[in-house]
Formats: sequence, structure tokens, C-alpha cells
Amino acid sequence: MEKIKPRTLSGFMELLPDGQARMERIMESLRRTYALCGFAPLDTPVIEASEVLLAKGGGETEKQIYRFTKGGTDLALRFDLTVPLAKYVALNYGRLNFPFRRYQIGKVYRGERAQRGRFREFYQADIDIIGDGALGIMNEAEIPAIIYKTFSALGLTKFTIRVNNRKLLAGFFALLGLADRAADLMRTIDKLDKLGAEKCRALLVEEGISAEKADKLMAFIGISGTSAEKLAALRVYAGRNASFDLGLSELEAVIRYLPEFGVPEENFAVDLTIARGLDYYTGTVYETTLTGRPEIGSVCSGGRYDDLAEYYTDKKLPGVGISIGLTRLFFALEEQGLFSDELITAPADALIIPMTADLSKAVETATRLRDNGVRAMLYGEEKKLKAKISYADRTGIPFVVFLGDDELSAGVVKLRDMQTGEQFSETAGAAASRIRVAVETRGNSSVIRD
Amino acid sequence: MEKIKPRTLSGFMELLPDGQARMERIMESLRRTYALCGFAPLDTPVIEASEVLLAKGGGETEKQIYRFTKGGTDLALRFDLTVPLAKYVALNYGRLNFPFRRYQIGKVYRGERAQRGRFREFYQADIDIIGDGALGIMNEAEIPAIIYKTFSALGLTKFTIRVNNRKLLAGFFALLGLADRAADLMRTIDKLDKLGAEKCRALLVEEGISAEKADKLMAFIGISGTSAEKLAALRVYAGRNASFDLGLSELEAVIRYLPEFGVPEENFAVDLTIARGLDYYTGTVYETTLTGRPEIGSVCSGGRYDDLAEYYTDKKLPGVGISIGLTRLFFALEEQGLFSDELITAPADALIIPMTADLSKAVETATRLRDNGVRAMLYGEEKKLKAKISYADRTGIPFVVFLGDDELSAGVVKLRDMQTGEQFSETAGAAASRIRVAVETRGNSSVIRD
Repeated sequence: MEKIKPRTLSGFMELLPDGQARMERIMESLRRTYALCGFAPLDTPVIEASEVLLAKGGGETEKQIYRFTKGGTDLALRFDLTVPLAKYVALNYGRLNFPFRRYQIGKVYRGERAQRGRFREFYQADIDIIGDGALGIMNEAEIPAIIYKTFSALGLTKFTIRVNNRKLLAGFFALLGLADRAADLMRTIDKLDKLGAEKCRALLVEEGISAEKADKLMAFIGISGTSAEKLAALRVYAGRNASFDLGLSELEAVIRYLPEFGVPEENFAVDLTIARGLDYYTGTVYETTLTGRPEIGSVCSGGRYDDLAEYYTDKKLPGVGISIGLTRLFFALEEQGLFSDELITAPADALIIPMTADLSKAVETATRLRDNGVRAMLYGEEKKLKAKISYADRTGIPFVVFLGDDELSAGVVKLRDMQTGEQFSETAGAAASRIRVAVETRGNSSVIRD
Repeated sequence: MEKIKPRTLSGFMELLPDGQARMERIMESLRRTYALCGFAPLDTPVIEASEVLLAKGGGETEKQIYRFTKGGTDLALRFDLTVPLAKYVALNYGRLNFPFRRYQIGKVYRGERAQRGRFREFYQADIDIIGDGALGIMNEAEIPAIIYKTFSALGLTKFTIRVNNRKLLAGFFALLGLADRAADLMRTIDKLDKLGAEKCRALLVEEGISAEKADKLMAFIGISGTSAEKLAALRVYAGRNASFDLGLSELEAVIRYLPEFGVPEENFAVDLTIARGLDYYTGTVYETTLTGRPEIGSVCSGGRYDDLAEYYTDKKLPGVGISIGLTRLFFALEEQGLFSDELITAPADALIIPMTADLSKAVETATRLRDNGVRAMLYGEEKKLKAKISYADRTGIPFVVFLGDDELSAGVVKLRDMQTGEQFSETAGAAASRIRVAVETRGNSSVIRD
């Protein structure tokens, strides 16, 4: 028979078993953290009617959409999890309780030019809190706590949750008489990290901002110090613009409860240069960066918006949300060597190797181990003992259970710790406990080690 | 602004929060069971090159495929998880350890005519064990244990794992001199349940089978009794056809270890009328039915095959696998009223309701509860107390934590059990323990109650 060459499309991540084990651990950790913080899981179709998915229309995204016709219906694959959420909330408005807090971890599709670290199919992990008509500032204040808990649970320690407020920025631009230049200004300010202060100022002047105003702008975004010091410096501008004052009070509210939310000062920063896409967010905005790894960019971003589902309903549905580009994050963590070596990525904790023709005892032992929470694999192939042990070795299975005639007659199993080489003759029950303790210790090591 | 009517495509399941909570529990349970049995998670792209996905070509399935072109590439959405597995194993052959045991829970797509209980996007939950050149019979024997563990963990008790062997059937047809009629015979036998024995026999005769052979066939598939009794009756036919004898010995091996695998006799049956699609499976075949609910059909099916990836590679890769049509199962369970009422489907275990302007204590309490494994939601909206309590009520959150001036000054929280109405004034730590214990007791109730 003529063979078809097997291949996976470029831009589509497909992991080998050890990588997949890490990805599973990450997803499991995210699900757990989001659930602990009171978010309900949501799952929506990958395919939607194009009319619904592209209600907002236009933009760079539309060109990237996977769009096609099936049975006369114009269909498209979702390109983010926000539009499906908007559709879901508008569609089920009367059956949901608000604030509606949901998380969703799912694949989205963008036909971008394939390049290293860019994916056409990728996971996003989103949380959003949607209010009905109104949504209290406490929800914006809670987001940094959730980001902190999310990344800490993965084992990350060196990261910074950067927060700004769009009302504050808009108000400050208005104070300078530059309200109509907001979009340009933000684009330029966004380059501060790359250009440095001097070139950034020069660019502002080049763009027609007076030297005086450029200096004021640079002084503003250059405000430094701890969060408390930055707030104090911002208060100097207060009392002259309503938007600025509102933004400042929101920022104060977000910062105020950080200690009670358990977010350490070193993992948080007010960053006046952060703006996100100007047309959608209306209040607090968030970015999260890994310390000393600027090339990765923000690994968790989001913000407050006033109108989630305006394309579908007249209901005012303000919300706040964040998103992790999970596939890209996974790729970056691997490339930066940030995965822990200690995590058990094997498909089992114990490999049961029978050495007699009658497999009853081996089967019984496998069942016993599984009932005791040990991931047990039964090796049923007719191979030399060496090949069987080598299988455990290559797969990284930490324990091997041998069942020979000696063990059977003594009513015990022979347990080998593949890491230390130690061997134990003990009952299956004792072996199960030993394996569980060891695996819980080793397996509890985080996915990430930084 | 003109609004687009929000809608979800017909044939695409999208659940409300309580349904989604149940689905999550089911998936979590499957992942856990599969992991305990030593299977590695796998994730493959939803989109593949059409050439790769349709390597086998032809058939009814091809018409249902979602197929389209993007950037000049002919693409298709996966319609099952077996073809992607075959591709994956062929592609990564040199980097995998065999037997390769993987589970995959993922969405697949078939553009079937939409009708009640039929889905165009649906989850499959598959496990497969793939050998390199050979695969021991022990793997086929293990499958019923995994099916049993899977459904038991969900709370199902009334189900039967039905097992047959294709070699046995083929051998018996050969014994009757009907080897070339195997496909027709199986189709007719498959109707036994619906037609009854008499009509089934008449149909066989109508199809040109002699009355004598029809009687023999009916006697064979009518063999009844316990597994042991059926095996004894089958042994009568032994010694006259190699395929039959091999099939019988395989069936004996599958049955032999059931007690050690912990599969109760009442959840298992040898069923000589089961065949599955004749062109793919070559040995043991499995179906699983819910007792007294024949309209649901098989909820978990599969079998042994000899050549997983023949379209991609010359390597002989025999395997055994089973698949659960998860979306259809979910739909059937709901329709049959088999979901337990006791399962907590709320997005949180506790709702923290602050009743003072300063939210510090409320935030601290939420953090404390989360750190202690309690799913805690902070209610930050400015509403009347009644509206806040009603939110907990409507959402089904089992505990409410009140924080008023009295509690703050006494250093306690007021905890209300929404189910019993009981209230407790105690420290946040004590409240966390109380909630955790109650939730573990109630939350441990299975998803299914039959």
C-alpha cells in the first residue's frame, strides 16, 4: 500500500508525552486556582456562525480568521474566548446570575504567518467577571490576587503584575490639552521600554508635542518608587480633571487591599506606561511580565471594560477579565529552561512486572495499587526482564514492582525505587503507601522552577 | 447600534453553569481514572491536513467532514481521535516507548444531519494501548477493568460490559462453511435484540442461509448462562478451526483475570452477538450498555486491531482501545434524569458578604479560605443584604460568610449553612474547616445516581 507521509501542520503545537504531562499539570493547576477563586467553568463551541463571531467586524483579526462554508452556512473558528463569552452572556442573560464569574481554557485559531513561537492553534486561559448594569471596583482589585495565585501555584516566583488605569491616563492627557492625541501618545509611550527615556521624548516632540508638554509627559510616566510613593506623586495632579480623579481613586482601591489579598509588594507594580488596546478597556489594565525576561512580553493581560456584549444586546454588561496565552507561555517556559526536572512526567508511578506464567497476583497488585491512588501500569508483554526494566527506565516510571515465584510464595512484592536503586520486600499495601508518599513528595515539585 | 442576534449553532452543545459543572466533574473523573490506570494524556490539533486525515479515504464519514482551504492548504477538522493517534504514533515512532498507552479527551467534528441527541461537535474520550510489532493479550484483558473503574467512579452501578471476540465469530462462520458471508451474517445477528430470535432466524433463511445452518447459528449466539457456562458451551466447538480456537483462548484470557481486576460478575457479560465494524477490529470487541436503558445504546465501545497506522507506515502497530462518546453520554444521562441532585454545581463553596465600608477583613477572609482549599467568592457589589443572600441562594452556594461590625470587633465571622439554615460565630480558620468538611461530604456524592 502506498503510504501518506504523516505530518502535523506548521503552527500547531503537538507535544511528546513528557511535554504533554507538563501541559496537563499547568492546566490542572489553572483550573484549580480559578475554581478556588470562585469562577465557574465554561465551554463554548470552537465553531460559530460567522455573522455572530464577526459581529464587531473589521480589523487585523478578520484576515486571520478560519472561515468556511458547510451545508450553506457561513462558519468561523473562534479567534479568542471573549467574543464567545459575549455571545453566551447575551444569549443566556435571563438564566445567569450576576456578577457572572467564569473561566474558560480552550483552543482558539488565528491564521497568522507561521514563525517560531507563533501558533495558529493555541490555548487561551481566560477569567472574566461580568456585572449586570454595574460592577464594583472590588472586582478590579481582586484580579492581581488571582494572577498572583495562578503563577505562584505553577512555581513561578519572579514575576511582576503591572497595573495602570486608563481613566488616569486619559485624564492626564486632558490636563495637558492633548485629549485628542491619546491614541498616538499611548503608542509612543508604549515604546519607552525599547527606546529609553531620551529617544522617547524626542519622538514625542517629532510627533508635534511641544517640548514643555513632552517633559511633563515624561515626568508623569517616569514617576518611580513603591506603589505608595507612586500614588503620593499622582495625588499631586488630583483635583483638576474628573477622569483623572476617578482613575486615581480606582487605582488606590486596587492597591489598598493587596496585603489582605496576599500579594507581596515585590510581585506588584503600578506602571503608568501600560495602556493595552485603547478602544476596549476603560479602567484598570493589567500586564504580567517575568523578571529579567523581557523578550517573553506579557504572559497575562487584561483589564476593565464597560460593555461586553454591545453587538448583541442593549443590556449594559461591564466586566473585568484577564487572559493567558497558554500555548505561547508553554513554548516560552520550555525555551527558557524554566521547567522543573523533578516533576514526574511518566504515565505511571509504578510498573508491575510479572515474572510468572500466572498473572493473577500481578493483576491483583495493579488493582490494589490503583485503588490506593497509585498510578499503576501492568506490563504484559513477553520480553526479557532487562527489556521490561528498561521500559520503566526510558519512560521515567519511578517504581518497579517485581512479582516472581519467591515473592508469590512469601505473599510480598519486590519494590524497586528506580531513582535510588533501593529494593524492598513488603506487602502490596505497604508498597502502595511507600510509593504514594514518595510520589507525593517528588510529584509536588512545581512545574516551573525559576 | 444595530444588534446581531446571538445564537449557538444547532448540533453544538453549550451548557449552562450547572450542567457545565457536571461535565467538568465527569471529565475530571475520567482523567483521574485513566491516569490511575497508567495512561499518558495526549492532545493533538483539531485541524489536520486533509491528505493526512483522509488517508484511509472513502466511506460515509468523508461526506460529514468539515473541510476547507486556508492559505492554499486543504484542511479538515478531526472526526475522531483514532486517526490523529495513528498519525502521532507514526510520526513520533522513534521517540515513543511501546506499549504506548495514551488517553485523549477532545472535541471531534461530524457534519451530520442535526437531530435531537446528535451532535456535530462532540467530545470523545479515548484510551488506546499500542504495541510495537506485537501486543500481549493481557492488554485486552485489562480493558474491562478500566471500563468498570471509569463508570463506577462516575457513580454508575447498573451497567454491563459486553465482550466478544471476532476471531471466535469468524472461526464459527468458517465451521459452518459461511466464511464468505461473515459481513452479512454479522449485520443480521446484530439485529437480534430488536427482532427477537424467531424473526432473526427467518431473516437468515431469507438471506439464503439453509435452515440447518440458521439453527446452528441461532444456537451458537443463543448460548446463555454465566461467563463460565458460556465458555464451557463454546469449548464444545473447539479443535476444528484455528481462528475459533485462538479466539476462544483469547476470550478465556480476558475472562480469567476479571476477579483480580475487581470487575464484578454482574457488570460483565460474554455477548456473542457483538461484532463492531468488521473491517477494523480483529480480536476482542467491547460494548457497554446501561441496564434497562437500551435506547441509549453502547456508551463505551472498542476492540483490538492489528494495524493502527497502516496508511502512514510499514511498521506493524497493533493495539486495543475504547472510546466514550462523552457529549452524547452527557445528553443521555441528563435526559434519563441520572444526574445526582446532591452534587454541588455552584461556582463557590462560600460567598463572603462584607457589611462594612472597609473590606479588609472580607478580603483577608476570602484569602484565608482559598489558602485552605475552600472555593471562596467575594461579593463586592453594593446591594441590599437580601439581594446578596439571594445571589448565594440562586447560585446554589452552600455557605455564606457575613462580616459585620459585630464580627469584626469580636474577631470572628458569621457562617450560615444555606442548606440547614444553621449559623455559627467562629474564627475564619474554624469556618474554613467546617466548610471543607461539609463540602467534601456533599461534594463527594457522585455525578450520577442510578
